Amino acid sequence: MTTLRKIALEEHFMMPGFETYSKAFLNFIDPATMKELGQRLADFDTLRLDEMDRAGIELVVLSQSGPGVQAEPDTTLALRRARENNDFLAERIARRPDRYAGFAMLPMHDPLEAARELERCVKQLGFKGSLVNGHTLGRYYEGREYDPFWERMQELDVPMYLHPIDPWKPLHALDGAPVLAGASWGWGVETASHALRMVFGGVFDRFPRLKVILGHMGEGLPFQRWRFDSRFAAYPYGVSLQRRPSEYIGTNLLITTSGVCSHPTLVGAVGEMGVDAVMFSVDYPYESTEAAARFIDTAPLEPAQLEAICHGNAARILGL
Amino acid sequence: MTTLRKIALEEHFMMPGFETYSKAFLNFIDPATMKELGQRLADFDTLRLDEMDRAGIELVVLSQSGPGVQAEPDTTLALRRARENNDFLAERIARRPDRYAGFAMLPMHDPLEAARELERCVKQLGFKGSLVNGHTLGRYYEGREYDPFWERMQELDVPMYLHPIDPWKPLHALDGAPVLAGASWGWGVETASHALRMVFGGVFDRFPRLKVILGHMGEGLPFQRWRFDSRFAAYPYGVSLQRRPSEYIGTNLLITTSGVCSHPTLVGAVGEMGVDAVMFSVDYPYESTEAAARFIDTAPLEPAQLEAICHGNAARILGL
Repeated sequence: MTTLRKIALEEHFMMPGFETYSKAFLNFIDPATMKELGQRLADFDTLRLDEMDRAGIELVVLSQSGPGVQAEPDTTLALRRARENNDFLAERIARRPDRYAGFAMLPMHDPLEAARELERCVKQLGFKGSLVNGHTLGRYYEGREYDPFWERMQELDVPMYLHPIDPWKPLHALDGAPVLAGASWGWGVETASHALRMVFGGVFDRFPRLKVILGHMGEGLPFQRWRFDSRFAAYPYGVSLQRRPSEYIGTNLLITTSGVCSHPTLVGAVGEMGVDAVMFSVDYPYESTEAAARFIDTAPLEPAQLEAICHGNAARILGL
Repeated sequence: MTTLRKIALEEHFMMPGFETYSKAFLNFIDPATMKELGQRLADFDTLRLDEMDRAGIELVVLSQSGPGVQAEPDTTLALRRARENNDFLAERIARRPDRYAGFAMLPMHDPLEAARELERCVKQLGFKGSLVNGHTLGRYYEGREYDPFWERMQELDVPMYLHPIDPWKPLHALDGAPVLAGASWGWGVETASHALRMVFGGVFDRFPRLKVILGHMGEGLPFQRWRFDSRFAAYPYGVSLQRRPSEYIGTNLLITTSGVCSHPTLVGAVGEMGVDAVMFSVDYPYESTEAAARFIDTAPLEPAQLEAICHGNAARILGL
């Protein structure tokens, strides 16, 4: 087994004061686990670096643990807190720029402010893109009011990691089943639905160079590509797109392996979208770095494919 | 290319009078397409048989097009109409028992009546199991009140095909996006969620020999197996199961290829669950028989695997 050199894209920290936004899911974690998670989320030093070293991870792109300001009801405060968070992260990265990079937290409440903050983070703080925790107070981002944001993001040529969040309104289909409502299933439904809104809402037709990254093996989307095409052709509901739905999945929508360390699914995703659309990630500290690294180090793919997944694709997309 | 001999499990008809239940989705289909679909749904003769012949399909298991009595608000009427539908189907099968078999429509409003109707259909009409269109008026089937039904189904040793239906309450995440609400995406979310409720609700612990079949490559579930295990281990929410969640997917939950004619996804599903958990289907007349047959006839799997997917698994599970 070779330990491949790796970049990882969905790796979280917690800025003091941001725990309050995360209560909805953190409250369900048992106290001992929570204590350990808290230590790992707060650490920018040996805890994190030692684990990276053991796994062959050269660089992690850090992001505030969700939902962050996506759950802040006050727009002005959301902007302020996003800036504080981004400045905090920039300061931590500056201590170890060889090992850490950053994804900006964005106040998506206001498309123009979000665009300005993204530009500031990229141009002044050297961030590599953004990580946005899904909807903001129930608003999705395919509407025309977000076009100025997408236009700026496309100009800046940086990706957005679209990370899960609780649905704005609980799903009836998960009523009485909190074990399914969050990370195990409901978050994936929420995030995949948001990404599909963007595809079918024409965002990638208007801004064809956008790159939106989905974790957790693409939240299931790679494996329904054929069905999207077939059902959209049968029932277009008045929507018209420049390409078949499947063609956005793997070009504008890219995926990471975070949280799904299973070889048949990895090989399937590569087969569906091509190897250039798949990138390694852990989802630190919620998932095991060791398990994620072992999974990819032993994956039944060609060396060049594994290099792309572990390092090359991320380096290209992040402009490293 | 060899034309493999095939059994197909998600193949629909429409009994006159049942169109009214299907209005929600049929109304969105353009009139020309609807006319052709209507002819194909009503036909039990050459239209269907010729297409089967060309595709190498020896036998189809027929089921009423959804949602059928799952959408009937009156429990008494639901029972009566389910019986009428099953008798209608039995009469049609009797004309060509060499080519047609049946899945029962069940009035799941009342678990005991549903159990009785299933027993009648299996023992008296020779049906091979049931096809249930998801929830009944918003009720799911993992609750203890359904145990008498599951117990009877397990005794009868027949599968249930859990087919999509509209969510009982629309998802906020799909608000304003009807193109995503139905067959393209929302139905899959609904059906996968229902199947997961059954897993996490312990139905398969209480009745370990149950077989529930999901179409559309398992509505995405095969490709999140690792994540189910990981997140359930981290956040069990007081639920305890006898096996890891992934272990139910591929044993109690089986899948068909209906509507997802893509080789990497097929190979991925086989890799995740084993070849015995995957069965060929078309979703006639909504999907193309020709495309489905070509897809499986050219799949990059071993001949024995393809025989199992196309014929052997279904023959074993249906007791043919």
